Amino acid sequence: MPLIQRLAIIGVGLIGGSLARILREKGAVVEIVGIGRGEANLRKAVELGVIDRYSLDPVAGVEGADLVFLATPVCSIIDMVARIAPALAPGCVVTDGGSVKGEIVAPCEKLLPPGTFFVGGHPIAGTEKSGVEASFAALYQGKRCILTPTAQTDGEALRKVVRMWELAGSEVVCMDVEKHDRVVAAISHLPHMVAYSLVNAVGGYDRFSENILKYSAGGFRDFTRIASSDPAMWRDIALMNREAVLEMMDFFSEYFAGLRNLVEKGDGHGLEAFFARSKQNRDAIS
Amino acid sequence: MPLIQRLAIIGVGLIGGSLARILREKGAVVEIVGIGRGEANLRKAVELGVIDRYSLDPVAGVEGADLVFLATPVCSIIDMVARIAPALAPGCVVTDGGSVKGEIVAPCEKLLPPGTFFVGGHPIAGTEKSGVEASFAALYQGKRCILTPTAQTDGEALRKVVRMWELAGSEVVCMDVEKHDRVVAAISHLPHMVAYSLVNAVGGYDRFSENILKYSAGGFRDFTRIASSDPAMWRDIALMNREAVLEMMDFFSEYFAGLRNLVEKGDGHGLEAFFARSKQNRDAIS
Ligand SMILES: NC(=O)c1ccc[n+]([C@@H]2O[C@H](COP(=O)([O-])OP(=O)(O)OC[C@H]3O[C@@H](n4cnc5c(N)ncnc54)[C@H](OP(=O)(O)O)[C@@H]3O)[C@@H](O)[C@H]2O)c1
Ligand SMILES: NC(=O)c1ccc[n+]([C@@H]2O[C@H](COP(=O)([O-])OP(=O)(O)OC[C@H]3O[C@@H](n4cnc5c(N)ncnc54)[C@H](OP(=O)(O)O)[C@@H]3O)[C@@H](O)[C@H]2O)c1
Repeated sequence: MPLIQRLAIIGVGLIGGSLARILREKGAVVEIVGIGRGEANLRKAVELGVIDRYSLDPVAGVEGADLVFLATPVCSIIDMVARIAPALAPGCVVTDGGSVKGEIVAPCEKLLPPGTFFVGGHPIAGTEKSGVEASFAALYQGKRCILTPTAQTDGEALRKVVRMWELAGSEVVCMDVEKHDRVVAAISHLPHMVAYSLVNAVGGYDRFSENILKYSAGGFRDFTRIASSDPAMWRDIALMNREAVLEMMDFFSEYFAGLRNLVEKGDGHGLEAFFARSKQNRDAIS
Repeated sequence: MPLIQRLAIIGVGLIGGSLARILREKGAVVEIVGIGRGEANLRKAVELGVIDRYSLDPVAGVEGADLVFLATPVCSIIDMVARIAPALAPGCVVTDGGSVKGEIVAPCEKLLPPGTFFVGGHPIAGTEKSGVEASFAALYQGKRCILTPTAQTDGEALRKVVRMWELAGSEVVCMDVEKHDRVVAAISHLPHMVAYSLVNAVGGYDRFSENILKYSAGGFRDFTRIASSDPAMWRDIALMNREAVLEMMDFFSEYFAGLRNLVEKGDGHGLEAFFARSKQNRDAIS
């Protein structure tokens, strides 16, 4: 029997669309309902075979669903859960793919009526593109997915969500919301803050009469690809993971200031050691 | 007639080896002599067909060459030019591929005897790998190469070097050494300083009992690839382009501090505008 009978996906974009595609491919779901605000995107999703049908009304859309996956920007998730809560079928499992967990999980748990269950999640997979047309079935293959169960989390509901991500090709890791938010602040949110700042700095350097970005080669392009990511999504993440993002930005600034100091002193040994340590760290993950 | 009769390449690594490969492929050179300190690397270069023969002695190696290309780390270039200067054949053109020009070009011009000519150069192309085995003929295809002629530069010598890079597939751009050093500090040296610092910061974050780098996914890996670059080469660059690198690091820090301020205030409009400006800049170069 398929893992999911009726899957409702709220926000059929890169993350929601990719999950729909892979679960269908694996025969893990009988019916997929897409929920969103824009009819054009949802119609496209039907055309692409990503969803079977759609609803612009979340309340109607989640009717009879045994699993609801929220994949809208993080600032909208709590409101959305509040809207659908009264309409959920008994036994329904609600989970999300939002990039921040601390501000989301406890409120969502409180909003759900007894007999329905919330499980916080975050696939560590993505691209700098958005929308259902950017979605693809292999997005989660070989990636990690972090789930953040709490003392309240129902064991059965957690197992269902774990199984779903395993079917999507991911390795599931569970950790508490606090650790999740620090870890992703370090490995994902900080790099985005750095990349956005770097592109703005280089683009804002006006010592010459031409835009020097035109001299950038492949290295710069690869390095700054993540600065093409959706501004609204990243605004939400910066707002919702504020404390951990600030901590990591300050932590980075200390290292950057340390390196600046080595450059200023012309400390060749110190510079080489700094770069070698970094190369070693980097090569260990490639 | 081939553009170059005898090409001497000092430092047969990624940059020197790739130039040798493409010039041979284009039939632009009759004989290629490799010069280096390590016999294993040079023997490998002969085996790979990158060079015809080699010498461990720069003075013997440049004998009879009509073009000498220096592709060793930037701190070694001036010394190397001093060593080979007395041995150069009349009419010989000496050029380099070093990533810094301000500290190199004037001293090298002074070191060369009358009737031999220096032209400073820097291909804006590369990878994070080093050594002749990482070299490939297409490295310069479609890339820019910056040359930095001065009032002293011989017109004939400049034309020969321009032609050489055009045969390698590059678009040649001329600018003064000062502008070169600022431009590359912005588009290349700063991103490296940022990437090295980022990897060290994330690798040094020890709030949890495990190394959180293991959670990093594709985005982080792409973003930090340049932190795998050769530490000694980047030590040299940071030492030799100190002033411009410091200027750009401080310029970046202002933008980063501005973004930090928006995060701290929870300024959603400001954050979205900052990210959107960056996305616009970034998308314009992709
Ligand atoms: N992209 C990544 O790399 C990545 C990785 C891991 C997790 N995430 C998380 O996954 C979620 C979705 O990201 P995504 O990359 O899939 O974005 P996306 O491609 O833009 O898709 C988001 C979808 O949500 C809907 N939406 C947008 N704004 C909304 C709002 N204010 N209220 C309600 N619905 C809204 C949109 O559909 P309609 O316009 O039809 O409503 C859109 O299709 C976010 O929470 C993000 O933090 C992203
Ligand atoms: N990699 C890039 O992305 C890039 C891009 C543009 C310009 N550049 C510039 O190109 C030059 C070469 O870089 P590369 O990437 O080709 O490096 P590489 O692959 O390491 O090659 C450099 C070669 O120089 C020789 N060498 C190393 N240290 C030396 C020293 N102290 N004195 C004399 N020779 C030495 C080495 O050969 P032996 O051990 O046999 O002597 C080595 O094969 C540097 O000036 C760099 O700034 C690099």
